Amino acid sequence: MRVHQMWDGYPELKTNLSSVLSLIESHVRVRDKTVAATINNLVHSGGKLLRPAYSLLCSQIGPDSEKEKAVAVAAAIEAIHMASLVHDDVIDDADTRHNHATIHTMHGNKFAIYSGDYLFCISFQILAQHASSLAHLDFNTRGMEKILAGELDQLNSRFKPSLSVKSYLSRVAGKTAQLFAISCYSGAMEGGATRKQAMNAWNMGHYIGMTFQIMDDILDFKGSSHCLGKPVMSDLQQGIYTLPLIYAMQQKPNAFKPFLEKKDMLTENDLTVIAELIDQYKGVEKAQALADKYTAKALKQLSKLPSGDYKEILEEVTTKLLKRKS
Amino acid sequence: MRVHQMWDGYPELKTNLSSVLSLIESHVRVRDKTVAATINNLVHSGGKLLRPAYSLLCSQIGPDSEKEKAVAVAAAIEAIHMASLVHDDVIDDADTRHNHATIHTMHGNKFAIYSGDYLFCISFQILAQHASSLAHLDFNTRGMEKILAGELDQLNSRFKPSLSVKSYLSRVAGKTAQLFAISCYSGAMEGGATRKQAMNAWNMGHYIGMTFQIMDDILDFKGSSHCLGKPVMSDLQQGIYTLPLIYAMQQKPNAFKPFLEKKDMLTENDLTVIAELIDQYKGVEKAQALADKYTAKALKQLSKLPSGDYKEILEEVTTKLLKRKS
Repeated sequence: MRVHQMWDGYPELKTNLSSVLSLIESHVRVRDKTVAATINNLVHSGGKLLRPAYSLLCSQIGPDSEKEKAVAVAAAIEAIHMASLVHDDVIDDADTRHNHATIHTMHGNKFAIYSGDYLFCISFQILAQHASSLAHLDFNTRGMEKILAGELDQLNSRFKPSLSVKSYLSRVAGKTAQLFAISCYSGAMEGGATRKQAMNAWNMGHYIGMTFQIMDDILDFKGSSHCLGKPVMSDLQQGIYTLPLIYAMQQKPNAFKPFLEKKDMLTENDLTVIAELIDQYKGVEKAQALADKYTAKALKQLSKLPSGDYKEILEEVTTKLLKRKS
Repeated sequence: MRVHQMWDGYPELKTNLSSVLSLIESHVRVRDKTVAATINNLVHSGGKLLRPAYSLLCSQIGPDSEKEKAVAVAAAIEAIHMASLVHDDVIDDADTRHNHATIHTMHGNKFAIYSGDYLFCISFQILAQHASSLAHLDFNTRGMEKILAGELDQLNSRFKPSLSVKSYLSRVAGKTAQLFAISCYSGAMEGGATRKQAMNAWNMGHYIGMTFQIMDDILDFKGSSHCLGKPVMSDLQQGIYTLPLIYAMQQKPNAFKPFLEKKDMLTENDLTVIAELIDQYKGVEKAQALADKYTAKALKQLSKLPSGDYKEILEEVTTKLLKRKS
C-alpha cells in the first residue's frame, strides 16, 4: 500500500502505516460498488496519515507494544477520520478536497452519507475485533461526539463576523485537536503506558492538533491553490471565519464589515482586498504567534515522555509538521 | 417516559421500555440545541419500540437476565434504528414520517446527518459502558453494514421496474429483518441463552422482520394517509417498487410500463389506475400469502424456545403485530 513520502525516513513506521491502510481496506466488504470504490479511493488517496502515525508512535511509550493491536487502534482512528471527512464534505458543500472531486459531488450526497456511515462501522468493527479493551471504544465515541460538536459550532457560526478568538479555539479543540489527542492517548494506552504518560500523550496530541489547524487556516490565506490542493480562502467563501481574519477584524471591524455583510458571493476582487486588510492588520503574524505557543506546549509535553527511538521520531515529525509552509 | 399503548398489557416490559428511552436520553449531551432537540423528539415520538421490546423479551430466554444490561442492549439497538431513520430520511427525500415533518426538512440535511452520526455514537457508547461483552458490538456493526447494504440496494434499484421478488426479499432482509434478528439475538446472548437458543431467536427475529416489512409495504397500497401516518403509495412515488406491485407486474408487465416509464411525477389519477391494476392482478393477496408463510416460520422458531411468561408475551405480540391491519 502506498504511504505518503513524508514517512520515507522511518521504514518501520511506514510499514505499519501501510498495514493500517490494508486493515481498513480488508474491512471494506460492502456489496455496493460505488460505496466500496469511494472508500477505497480514500484509502489510496495518499493522505499524510498523521493521526495513525501519532497513534503508532505513542504505542511505543509503554512496554507492551503489540504491533497488531497498535495497528488496529490506529486504523480505527483513521477510519473515523475518513468518515468525518466524507460527512463534512456533504455538510460543507465543499466540492474539492486535495484537488479530487469530493465523493458527494461525484455520486450524490446519498452515497456520501452511506459511505461515511459505513466507515464508522468499520472503525468500531476493527476495535471490536482487534483491540484489547472496551476503553478505546468509550474514548472513540466521546471523540466522535466532540468532533461533531466542533463541526456543529462551525456550522452555527457561519457568516457571523462576531466570532471571538475564544470560540474559534473551542471549535478547533473539538473538530481537530480532539482526534489528535485521542490518537496519542489510545496508542499510549494500547502500548501499556502509565496513566500519567497517557495523559501527557493526550495533552501533546491536543496541542499538536491546535497548531495543526491554526497552520492550516493560515495556509488558507497564504497558500496557492496548486500547493495546498484546495482553493485559497475557501473557508472565507463559505462563511467560515478563521484566526487570521478574526485577529485582523478585532483591529478594525468596520473595514471588514461591508464584505462580510454582502449577500452575494465574494468576488476575486473582494478576496484580494480582504487579503490585503488581513496583511495590514497582521492577522497572519498574530495567528502564527499563537501557533508557535501551542507548538512549544506540545514539545514540552513530549519532553516528559520516556526516552526511546519513538521519542526522537515524534520530535522530528512534530517540529517539521508544525513549521510546514505548505 | 411515555411508551406506546401497545405495551399497556405488559407492565414490566413497559417499565423496561421506558428505561430504554431514558437511557438513550441520558446520553444526549450534545451542546448543539438543534441536534439535542432532534434526538429528544425522536425519543418522545411515541414509536412502537418493537426492536427493543423483542430484545428485552429475548433476554429472558436464558437464566441470567440482568435488567440493567438487557436495557442497555435494547437501547443500543433502538439508537441504531433511530440513526438509520434519520439518515434514511435525508436519503429518501421523505418529507413526512408519522405525520411529523422530518428532521431534514425542518433543519436542513446538515443537522440530520450530524444527528444520525451522534445517535450512532450514543449506540456504541451505551454498549461500551453497560453491556457485558464486545460480542454485541461486533454484531451491531455487522448489523449496520447489512442495513446500509439493504438501503443501498433500494437506492440503486429505484425506478427499475425489472426488480424481481428475489431481489426485493434480499433488500428487505438487509434493511429491516437484519435489525430484528440482531435485536432478538443480542437480547438472548445478554441473558445467557445457549448458542442454539440464540440462533432460534435470530431466525425468529429475521422472519418477524421480513413479515413486518411486507405488511408495511402492503399497507402502503391499502391504508389511508390518516391511519398510517404516511402518504399512500409513497414508496411508489419515489420509485421504490415493493412486493404487491412486483407480483402484479409479473402477471402483466405491459400494463404497468407506461406509468413506470413516465418521466414526470405520477398523478393522482395514475396512482388510482395502478392501484386498480394491482388489485386486478392480485398483488396484495400474493404478498399477504408470502407474509403469512414468514409468520408461520417465525412462530415455529418461537415454539422451540423454553417455556416462560416471556414466551407467551412473544407469541401474543408477534401474532398481533403480524396480523395488524394498520
